Order: sequence, then structure tokens, then C-alpha cells
Amino acid sequence: MNNFTFYNPTKIVFGRGTVSQLGGLMEPYGKKVLLVYGGGSIKRNGLYDRVMEQLRSVGAEVHELSGVEPNPRLTSVHRGIEICREHGVEFILGVGGGSVIDAAKAIAAGVPYEGDVWDFYVRKARVQKALPLGAVLTLAATGTEMNGNSVITNWETREKRGAGSIHMYPKFSILDPELTFTVPTDQTANGIVDMMSHVFEQYFSQTMDTPLQERFCESILKTVIENGEIALREPDHYAARANLMLCATYALNGGMISVGVEDDWASHGIEHAISAFYDIAHGAGLSIVFPNWMKYVYRERIDRFVQFAVRVWGIDPAGKSDEEIALAGIEATRDYFTRIGAPATLGEVGIGREHLDEMAEHAVRFGPIGRFRKLEKDDVKAILEMAL
Amino acid sequence: MNNFTFYNPTKIVFGRGTVSQLGGLMEPYGKKVLLVYGGGSIKRNGLYDRVMEQLRSVGAEVHELSGVEPNPRLTSVHRGIEICREHGVEFILGVGGGSVIDAAKAIAAGVPYEGDVWDFYVRKARVQKALPLGAVLTLAATGTEMNGNSVITNWETREKRGAGSIHMYPKFSILDPELTFTVPTDQTANGIVDMMSHVFEQYFSQTMDTPLQERFCESILKTVIENGEIALREPDHYAARANLMLCATYALNGGMISVGVEDDWASHGIEHAISAFYDIAHGAGLSIVFPNWMKYVYRERIDRFVQFAVRVWGIDPAGKSDEEIALAGIEATRDYFTRIGAPATLGEVGIGREHLDEMAEHAVRFGPIGRFRKLEKDDVKAILEMAL
Repeated sequence: MNNFTFYNPTKIVFGRGTVSQLGGLMEPYGKKVLLVYGGGSIKRNGLYDRVMEQLRSVGAEVHELSGVEPNPRLTSVHRGIEICREHGVEFILGVGGGSVIDAAKAIAAGVPYEGDVWDFYVRKARVQKALPLGAVLTLAATGTEMNGNSVITNWETREKRGAGSIHMYPKFSILDPELTFTVPTDQTANGIVDMMSHVFEQYFSQTMDTPLQERFCESILKTVIENGEIALREPDHYAARANLMLCATYALNGGMISVGVEDDWASHGIEHAISAFYDIAHGAGLSIVFPNWMKYVYRERIDRFVQFAVRVWGIDPAGKSDEEIALAGIEATRDYFTRIGAPATLGEVGIGREHLDEMAEHAVRFGPIGRFRKLEKDDVKAILEMAL
Repeated sequence: MNNFTFYNPTKIVFGRGTVSQLGGLMEPYGKKVLLVYGGGSIKRNGLYDRVMEQLRSVGAEVHELSGVEPNPRLTSVHRGIEICREHGVEFILGVGGGSVIDAAKAIAAGVPYEGDVWDFYVRKARVQKALPLGAVLTLAATGTEMNGNSVITNWETREKRGAGSIHMYPKFSILDPELTFTVPTDQTANGIVDMMSHVFEQYFSQTMDTPLQERFCESILKTVIENGEIALREPDHYAARANLMLCATYALNGGMISVGVEDDWASHGIEHAISAFYDIAHGAGLSIVFPNWMKYVYRERIDRFVQFAVRVWGIDPAGKSDEEIALAGIEATRDYFTRIGAPATLGEVGIGREHLDEMAEHAVRFGPIGRFRKLEKDDVKAILEMAL
């Protein structure tokens, strides 16, 4: 285990009907609020009205930024920052999935910063302060509700990039599993792939002597695997939705499951490179990339892949070589993603070999990616070829 | 799963040599410091000097409260509060095990309170504010380094009682596994029992649909079981000490492993009643009480005890009844505690039946205890009889 620092100051308010606590949670942070949301599904399902009622109950002055995209764009962030500055907004409230909350974080960090908020994403500057922000989550997937990460896409430069800061942790996040009952099947599936992928990035590691962290990762994976299929079959199954929501949060809440572990993130790098050329859902991209990444790298540490196969997928090791066990675990991963309806190939989402070389180039433009195994451009290209 | 709120603002700084970060961590909270410690082992092993060097490096004015007892006493807490008030202390630093840190918390809460700090422990008042506090941990056991709980013993009234508050979470805790290399064998064993018992209190629950929380509990138990014996055999085995230290913290860090789960705590209630009459180590008391509590209550929810036996202890269920599997798991727990040198009976620690009735009376003096199964006085007495 490596030395580490862990600090996560987000308050999680979880369960049925917890939106009714929003007013009280928000009140300490000021009356002038920017409400950030997406394409309007919260208006159709009544959540918008419930949120507004809470905001009114504490006398908030509400400004709105709607239409935040599934891969949130820098242009939307800029619009949000402008609104905040114009009206002296004191608190940002994101109501939606990961994209909305990531945009809310970017706005929160951008308002008090004199330069362009994109500086934080290209490492030209570090976030030194941010407006306080909170979240009402409507999708179990990214974990952004309990961490300081934000991923924004700049379409002008074709870049999807992340920034992280302790100042971007939400002050609170309201997680009501009932709000995810109406999430469409494909988004539910993408969310499942996303949360599992976050665990993979931390589980496949070269760090030794981390039995607790490994078991925490396996705990989440097994719980997601069991509950994912239930939620897809019965979208309003409370327990399944609650378990998924909790798993998504724990999968990426500031590294709680992987303290002292060197994580990888190459697969996310490859997915971001694909997203820079094609506007595909993050979870769909990961479903295509991850099993191929596994096949490409498993020999680096076959013991971990054997453990994964046996403990997570229940592969019976009897009479099999390590190689066979490891591959059976990877196959089980691929099968599960396919069973829940997530894509297996780039072809399925309409991507051919046109930009393969550029995407590989893009993925490593700041140097090799990944720490489980360092990937150069040729490695990324090989993985993309496998994914065609 | 029940609705819940989770919030844990303690910063954990973990690993070899992290005491060197103490000065920087403390600096924001003020220059006037009360250093709280125990019987002087930190002077013998050099930790005192390292801490003082850090305090001097940031120009701190240091006052000291030493001699805090293994079951920390209200009288020591009172002394600490007096020192703080006399010198205008701004920050409390506990250097030691759970007792020292629990005393530091009580002092931190007591200083700004006009009444007697004991009010918080008898529920006459709630902690509204506290001085900021930090910890350097020297023993893997109680989890106090990352929660807001404090247990204090009042010898005048024969009461060992707990208080909890968000204001008593340490601002930071330094966890260097190397500091536990010199912990004596019996204390290491008691610490192992203590952390496992904390998990038991949260794992044996009537709450349904909590697969992730159950697996997190099992993850800690399995990791403790594996690493406990290694640490006892090789006291300076870094990985084993580090894994134990991490497990102890996660076992009771504000309920992170049991969010939305109704916990029990009857066994701790019984142990506190024993401690009110006999000054025994907390872990030793739990080692005696817990397996007997298990035998007394397992029929309330045999499925959970079957799961415990199979998943945690690897009991092969083939050809066994649920009853047999459950009992085998309880037996394995008892055997493990015995194997690491923790006591099995009250007799072993010199306790006979003299105060049995009084102890049972004491345990339920505010009403029945436990939520997995509610225990009345007769139940507690029966468990104590089993433990003789």
C-alpha cells in the first residue's frame, strides 16, 4: 500500500423523498442561486417543480442555465459563468446526471477566476476557490456527486478533458433512487458500464498489499452485476435502483475504495479520444474499450485478472490455466455488457477506421497513458483496432 | 436500505513517516496547543520528540495533559479542560490510541461549554461547538480517528458512556502503521477484536436489501482475520500493520460501511456494563461477550449468520443445516479470538458472578438494548451467565 491522503467533505443525503431537504441544505450558502439542468426531462417528470418549491421555501432568487449537453460543453459553462457574474450568484445547484453536475462544478470554479475556466482543464491553472455547489442526482453513473472531478468538452479544439479540485466537491448531494426510475434503458446500461469501469480503473493496479481495497472493489462490482439486470428488467425496483446509486457513488468518491493504490485510467483516456471525434455516450465508449484493454494488458499481472475472474464472476478455476481463467473473466465482462445492451464494437456505434490513427495520436498527445501498463500510440491504436 | 445522511469531514493522512506532515496540518488552527497523551510510551519510543519537533517548527505554544487512562476518566477530561481555559488553548492534539483521542474529543467539546462536559455523555446536553482537534494514532482499534464518537468513564457514578457529534470529528488524523510496531501483543489482539466487533455491530442487522454494505463488512472482517495473525507473529510487518490500521478506521468511520443500515450495539452496551464494575480492556470484554451474544441471538435471522459463516469464515455449507452452518461460523469466531490470545470467559479476566445481576441491571438502565434483537435485563443476564 502506498502512502495517501483521503479527504471527502461532501454530505450525502440518500433515500426516498429526500428532495424535501433541499431548502434546508442550501440555506447556509446564500439566496442567489444558479439552477443548472439538462434537456428538460426534469420538467416532464415533475422534479423541476419540486426543486423550485424548495428554492422558493427559503426565499431564493433563482437564475437558470438549461440545456446542458450529455457531454457538457465549454460553451454552456461559459454561459453559466456569465449569468452568475451578471446577477451575483452565490450558490450553484446542479439537478441532473453527471454532465449537469460536472458543468455546475466548472461554473462554480470559473466564476471567481479571472482567466478562462478552460485553463483548469488544460492544466494552465489550478482551482484556488469556487462558489459552493450542491447537487440533486438523477442518474447513477459517474460518481461526480461525491468527488471534485469535472469533465468538459471543448468542441473548438476537439478536447474532452477533466479537472479536479477539493474546491469542486459538492457541499451536499441529494440521492433519491426514485428519481432514476424513469431513466431510459440505454442510459441505465451506460451508467452501469460507467460505474464498473471506474472500479476497473482502480482495481487493475500494480500496487501490492491492498487486500481491503481489492475487496471493496469486488464488493461494488458484484453488487452492480446483480442489481443492474434487475433494474433493467424492473425500472421501478427501489432496492435495485438504490443499490446501483450507492455503488456508483462509492465507485468514485475521491478514491475511498482505492486509498494507497495507483490507479490506471488509460481506458478513460482512450474513450475521451473517441469522444473528441464522435459524440457518443461515455458509458457506450467504455463498454467498447474496456474489455479490449483487458485483453491487451492482462499478462502484465495475471494474478489480478485471475482473482477478478474467480471472485467477481465466479469462474471455477478447477482444471484451468491462469491464462484460461483470466480470459474467462474478461469474456464474462464482455458478455455482461452485451447482455445489458451496451455496445461491443466501434462499428455498432457507427465508427469506422477513418480517424483511428488520429484518435490514437490524440489519446497520447501529452505522453503515454495508463499506469497498470503504460500505453504508447501504437498500443492505443492496437486496442482501437481490436474494438472495430 | 433505509434513508440516510453521511458526512465525514476528517482528513486522513496515512503511511510511513507521515508524522512529518503534522506541523503543516495543524498550523491553520492556531498556535496554542494542548498535547494529550497516555502513560508515556510515546516518550520511550521517540514519538513525543518527533511530535514536539513538529509543534516547534510552526512556533506552537504547547501545554500538556499526560497520563490519560486506557479507559479514559472524566477526571482527566476535567483537568484537560481546565488547562485549556487557563491558557486559552486553540487546538487539541491527541497522540495515542483510542482512549487518548476520545479524551481529546471530550476536552475539545468541554472547553466552550458552560456546564459540565459529562452532560454530553448523559444526554443532558448536545455538543453545539468544540475546539478543533487532530490526532496522531498509535493503535489500530477503535476507529475514533475518523468519527465523532467519544467514550468516557465516570468512576464516581460507575458509568462508561459515549457521546457523538459532528463537532468532535478530528480535523485530521495521522495514521502511520510503523507507530504500531511496538504495540504489545495483548493490545494488538484486543485491537483486532475491537475492530471486528465494530463490524459485527453493523453487520448483524434486520435491515433488508443492503448487499453492498454487507460485502464491505465482510471485506473488512476477512482482511482483519488474515492480517491479524501476521501482525501478531511479525509485529513489524508493515503491510499487515497497515492493513489492520486501515480496517480499524473503515470499520467505524461515521458508518461508511453501514449507510442505511440499522446497527445493533447491544454487545458494546454489555461490555460497558462490565467495564463499569471492572477495569478491563475494552477488546478483552468484547472478546468474551460477542460470541455469546451471537449464540443467544442467531435464530433471529439465521440467513445472515449463514452468510457470515460461509463468506467470512469459508465454512463449507454442503450437507449442513442452516443451524449447523450458523453455529460453525460463531465457533470459528470464538476460535479465532482464542487463537490470537483474547479471553473467552469472564473467569479468565478474574470476574465471577458477584456483580452479574447488577451488571445486567446496569446494561438496561435506560431501557432494552440492541436492535438486531432487543435485550431486556434477563437476556443480558443470560448472556453474562453463558460467559462465566
